[in-house]
Amino acid sequence: MRRKEFQVEDEQACEAFLGERDDGVLTFRGEDGWPKAVPLNYAYADGAVYFHGSKKGEKMSGLAADPRAEFVVFQAHAFIPSHFSDPYLACPATVYFRSVRIRGTVAQVEDPEEKATALAALLAKMQPEGGHAPIRADDPKYASSLRGVSVLRLDALEMSGKFKFGQNLKDKMRGKVIEGLEERNREGDSETVAFMRAFAPGD
Amino acid sequence: MRRKEFQVEDEQACEAFLGERDDGVLTFRGEDGWPKAVPLNYAYADGAVYFHGSKKGEKMSGLAADPRAEFVVFQAHAFIPSHFSDPYLACPATVYFRSVRIRGTVAQVEDPEEKATALAALLAKMQPEGGHAPIRADDPKYASSLRGVSVLRLDALEMSGKFKFGQNLKDKMRGKVIEGLEERNREGDSETVAFMRAFAPGD
Repeated sequence: MRRKEFQVEDEQACEAFLGERDDGVLTFRGEDGWPKAVPLNYAYADGAVYFHGSKKGEKMSGLAADPRAEFVVFQAHAFIPSHFSDPYLACPATVYFRSVRIRGTVAQVEDPEEKATALAALLAKMQPEGGHAPIRADDPKYASSLRGVSVLRLDALEMSGKFKFGQNLKDKMRGKVIEGLEERNREGDSETVAFMRAFAPGD
Repeated sequence: MRRKEFQVEDEQACEAFLGERDDGVLTFRGEDGWPKAVPLNYAYADGAVYFHGSKKGEKMSGLAADPRAEFVVFQAHAFIPSHFSDPYLACPATVYFRSVRIRGTVAQVEDPEEKATALAALLAKMQPEGGHAPIRADDPKYASSLRGVSVLRLDALEMSGKFKFGQNLKDKMRGKVIEGLEERNREGDSETVAFMRAFAPGD
């Protein structure tokens, strides 16, 4: 990442963001040598990202040949129009966002217990109300499904966050953006102002 | 893509989706040999995807060494809990979504006119209300900004869509999912039902 002022060194802030979101894009080198971008739901726990999918296909073949991958989760929070801070030039227009990138290698999970735990974590995020029997390796009704599904684990070697909330702006410009967001007051705008105050409290 | 029933052959449907959305993830091979995943805003026009960014950094160095890239745009429409269709097993839980992947090579745009047109298209999407001077290569107030910014163009070699809305379900199960969505009635649920009817009209 080139722009150091947006970088988030705080692993806890990155992990909290990963806990809030539920999908991202997994990238790897395909068997044909081309880069691949696959949107996936995920569950993050202790430096590992879990995905599930089928046992055949481009993820399996590509990652078997080269397990190096990067997974990115991002959220656009607010579009900042140029006219918040400049009446003539379009250049200040930008998007405030959070993103976390995780680099590591991907392995297939073979152990039925770890598979069941990973699938339960994936589902707990999406279906917190429950309404299903617990996913357990020792429940015979789940046995064939657990055998049939593939679970992948990305072991993080490096995690980096980029949270862009006007850290590059001088106080005067930052004030104009905050004013613009407060006046516009779209969904997410007041949260964006809170992020601006947290991440870029002033010169 | 392995699951053929979710594949969208219709280029118009893919292009319409690209027109609706404004961000995605660009993937390429980094200079260090690792796959990279960079979230970006984009503008799509006639088989080309335009991005902008700085003249230095990982995108520039990676893509200069290997211009092959894939760009993915995706939208999660509705989480479908398992209990819509199965009272015991968690297996039917899934997400209905649309995604479009574009594979091609990335070139730097050097021509000031094409740069200005691409930046204007990017901004028109985000700031339809205007409120800035038109971005033109012959406006001296834009000249130095246009020289300073980098514009990248991904020329599509292949575009594929995956629109998952229950096409794999038998009529009875599809009916249960539609019923569940209509009863839940969260934001997006009625649109999801409309997509289900459009893409999976029944056996």
